[in-house]
Amino acid sequence: MEIVLIGSGSVATHLGLALQSKGIVIKQVFSRNSENARNLADKLGTTYIDDIEDLYMDADIYIYALKDSALKTVLRKMEIPNGVHVHTAGSIPMSDFEGFTSRYGVFYPLQSFSIQKTVDFSNIPICIEACEAEVQQILYDLAKLLTDKIYTVNSEQRKKLHLAAVFACNFTNYMYDIASQILDDSDIQFEIIQPLIAETAEKIKTLSPFDAQTGPAVRFDETTIARHLHMLNKTPEISKIYSILSKEIHSRHKGS
Amino acid sequence: MEIVLIGSGSVATHLGLALQSKGIVIKQVFSRNSENARNLADKLGTTYIDDIEDLYMDADIYIYALKDSALKTVLRKMEIPNGVHVHTAGSIPMSDFEGFTSRYGVFYPLQSFSIQKTVDFSNIPICIEACEAEVQQILYDLAKLLTDKIYTVNSEQRKKLHLAAVFACNFTNYMYDIASQILDDSDIQFEIIQPLIAETAEKIKTLSPFDAQTGPAVRFDETTIARHLHMLNKTPEISKIYSILSKEIHSRHKGS
Repeated sequence: MEIVLIGSGSVATHLGLALQSKGIVIKQVFSRNSENARNLADKLGTTYIDDIEDLYMDADIYIYALKDSALKTVLRKMEIPNGVHVHTAGSIPMSDFEGFTSRYGVFYPLQSFSIQKTVDFSNIPICIEACEAEVQQILYDLAKLLTDKIYTVNSEQRKKLHLAAVFACNFTNYMYDIASQILDDSDIQFEIIQPLIAETAEKIKTLSPFDAQTGPAVRFDETTIARHLHMLNKTPEISKIYSILSKEIHSRHKGS
Repeated sequence: MEIVLIGSGSVATHLGLALQSKGIVIKQVFSRNSENARNLADKLGTTYIDDIEDLYMDADIYIYALKDSALKTVLRKMEIPNGVHVHTAGSIPMSDFEGFTSRYGVFYPLQSFSIQKTVDFSNIPICIEACEAEVQQILYDLAKLLTDKIYTVNSEQRKKLHLAAVFACNFTNYMYDIASQILDDSDIQFEIIQPLIAETAEKIKTLSPFDAQTGPAVRFDETTIARHLHMLNKTPEISKIYSILSKEIHSRHKGS
């Protein structure tokens, strides 16, 4: 099985390394940025190109791990090889491949990757979608090398999943960031709050987030809410976030 | 060492059970609600009272694990025994004990407790504050039975810590709740997103939340943001939350 990676960011990097460790041959890396392309090719011990005209034409699978806006641009510039073409993006429909190739799909690992941090793919859900059964089987077999958590998710669902992930990951991390700013301001080490963060994430493995909700907003504790808003009066944006979230938690739990 | 628990909610329950397992005698449980008092006393194999006049007067430590508004009300109704008096609340100053007793402090476990879920105290930070060195030592020794994560935190800092915890725990859980509503609407199982939630919490053990920030807002990806807002047009409150958080993440990372 030979694969070409189109892209050299964190998804391409982690996916490339993980697939290679399972015996898949990463034949070539493409990036318009030749330094990035070389860096990843070095990590994988393979070759790189920064001109799409030099693309290797005989791979089994081409994985496009690009910025959302770049997929169609790249496809338009390429001579499209045979082989299966998949992208790794949450918010791009599979149909973006239509008209370019007849064998395509999506291979979306639902995780937030950072270049700096190694990942254990066995714990990462991979969402697959394919234009036909034969491609579906190829993507399933590829995913199976990495994880047992394989989900068939259509483009409409994947869009929703990506949106949900913004809340569960990006906005959650921003809540941590606000907490860390508040602690910094009072010379309190961030580490003191880490067990609470870990337990909050752990809890929803056994309780629904609705049932796990605690805090002044769900208790309708107006005295504490007013005291907190007063403490935030020098940071009006954060105060506004506190107000809106408290109001929504309150109205979701009212009468429950 | 004999302890009386004033209160019978989840903090009283978990703290009582944990201290008892370390050989501390829980002499009595008080709650105005006699059924709650009896339930906790049964769990601890001890006696309960629902009338504060029946309070056991010879305990070493009285732990007030009450709703924030109830502490002073209870103190006013009591004949205050000798012994050390501590509350377990994040947002109440230690000075609320002034005028009632001369040996007092705070014993604040920084965790979100649910009655249903057992907790491992060895991983819970306990924040202590005391009116004098002798009481400080008693509280330190008590905390040390349960955990190595002991922090001396004054009332001003504890207020900030409690505020930070609202973001890191309560609001974070609400982000999970929104994600779960979005997934429900599209018949996607919540379990698919759990590894992402776990990794998001794990990441900030090695990266600061600022450095760990990912997502469309930090990338200034206006196309994705607009698409997400369009998907949320039937839930204007959640759409508003999405907008404000994206805007703030954007402005915090602009130029970084």
